[in-house]
Amino acid sequence: MKRETLALYLVTDRGLALGRDLETVVLQAVKGGVTLVQLREKDLDTREFIALGQRLKAALAGSGVPLLINDRVDVALAVDADGVHIGQSDMPYEIARRLLGPDKIIGLSVETMDEVVEANALDVDYVAVSPVFSTNTKTDTLAPFGYEGLRRARALSRHPLCGIGGMNAATAGQAVACGADGVAVVSAIVSAPDPYLASKNLKSIIDNELDKRRLG
Amino acid sequence: MKRETLALYLVTDRGLALGRDLETVVLQAVKGGVTLVQLREKDLDTREFIALGQRLKAALAGSGVPLLINDRVDVALAVDADGVHIGQSDMPYEIARRLLGPDKIIGLSVETMDEVVEANALDVDYVAVSPVFSTNTKTDTLAPFGYEGLRRARALSRHPLCGIGGMNAATAGQAVACGADGVAVVSAIVSAPDPYLASKNLKSIIDNELDKRRLG
Repeated sequence: MKRETLALYLVTDRGLALGRDLETVVLQAVKGGVTLVQLREKDLDTREFIALGQRLKAALAGSGVPLLINDRVDVALAVDADGVHIGQSDMPYEIARRLLGPDKIIGLSVETMDEVVEANALDVDYVAVSPVFSTNTKTDTLAPFGYEGLRRARALSRHPLCGIGGMNAATAGQAVACGADGVAVVSAIVSAPDPYLASKNLKSIIDNELDKRRLG
Repeated sequence: MKRETLALYLVTDRGLALGRDLETVVLQAVKGGVTLVQLREKDLDTREFIALGQRLKAALAGSGVPLLINDRVDVALAVDADGVHIGQSDMPYEIARRLLGPDKIIGLSVETMDEVVEANALDVDYVAVSPVFSTNTKTDTLAPFGYEGLRRARALSRHPLCGIGGMNAATAGQAVACGADGVAVVSAIVSAPDPYLASKNLKSIIDNELDKRRLG
């Protein structure tokens, strides 16, 4: 996976979509500049999860934006997604890699500096530093990294890296300035009045910082 | 899978094991005559589910008793279980078969007479008629089949068939007399004061009815 694919990473949450259809929100977000999509659904049964994954995959076809599935390798295999995102309490990385093969994307959440370092021993495609700031979206997280923690994580990690947790138009630029290759957002896009405009704005902020890094 | 493998089918529920270690309960049950084990855990995260599956698989090694995983094809693949048991809201059978290959066991819950008939179009290894009687173990079920429904299901199905729901020493014999190839039990073994004796007693009741059928 190219590092640029992490730039603006949309993580779904149907419950935050203001009653809107998830495929519609995702397509507007992709039009606005989202570079990676993760389907995260903790409350769906397996059959519904697969059906939604298939619809999202069809919606993303031809966009060049990869679709990852949160946690569930069975769902990823069932819909032939581009990969999975796993947390520390999900399937161990080595098993996920064996089941998915060498070509699928596997991202890993890291919630402590120790986990950032441990991930260097794994051939993951990226790490998501979680959370940069605490949020209401995900409540089972450890102490937030903050910008300074994100900067340290960047220095310690050999992997492409994004920040997640409290990432929005007010924080995304600073997160990238701390060395992140991108930011993962949930409500900043999913709950935005206009997911297209929200994504476009975020993408512009992120690209601006990435440009500075390239030039500076 | 041989039809005899369905005779006494143990479905786990850690919450009902009276605080005892699940591996210990399962091993006692196997010693008592259990012929098939399904690990059903709805509240574990994926990593814990896999770890428990690996422990159970190691415990069952050499026993000849297959280990199935409820719903989660990823967990089944991760631990190289002998198969899965899927319900009507789990992964569709055709996808599960594709992911698991032709040699793994796939069992399917059927909750209505229509589903019994629909399952005849699928190459499943067995169907579990659910529930024969309503229970506290599983509350998301439809109207119970009762003995008469079990008998009709047997007549309609081309598959090996077991009953589940309210199966215990008082009901197992009659269920087999209705044509079931076996019964699946949860609390009758998992919550028994002595899982070995409870299994031995159930197995004897079931074998007695199966013998009658063979001879009669």
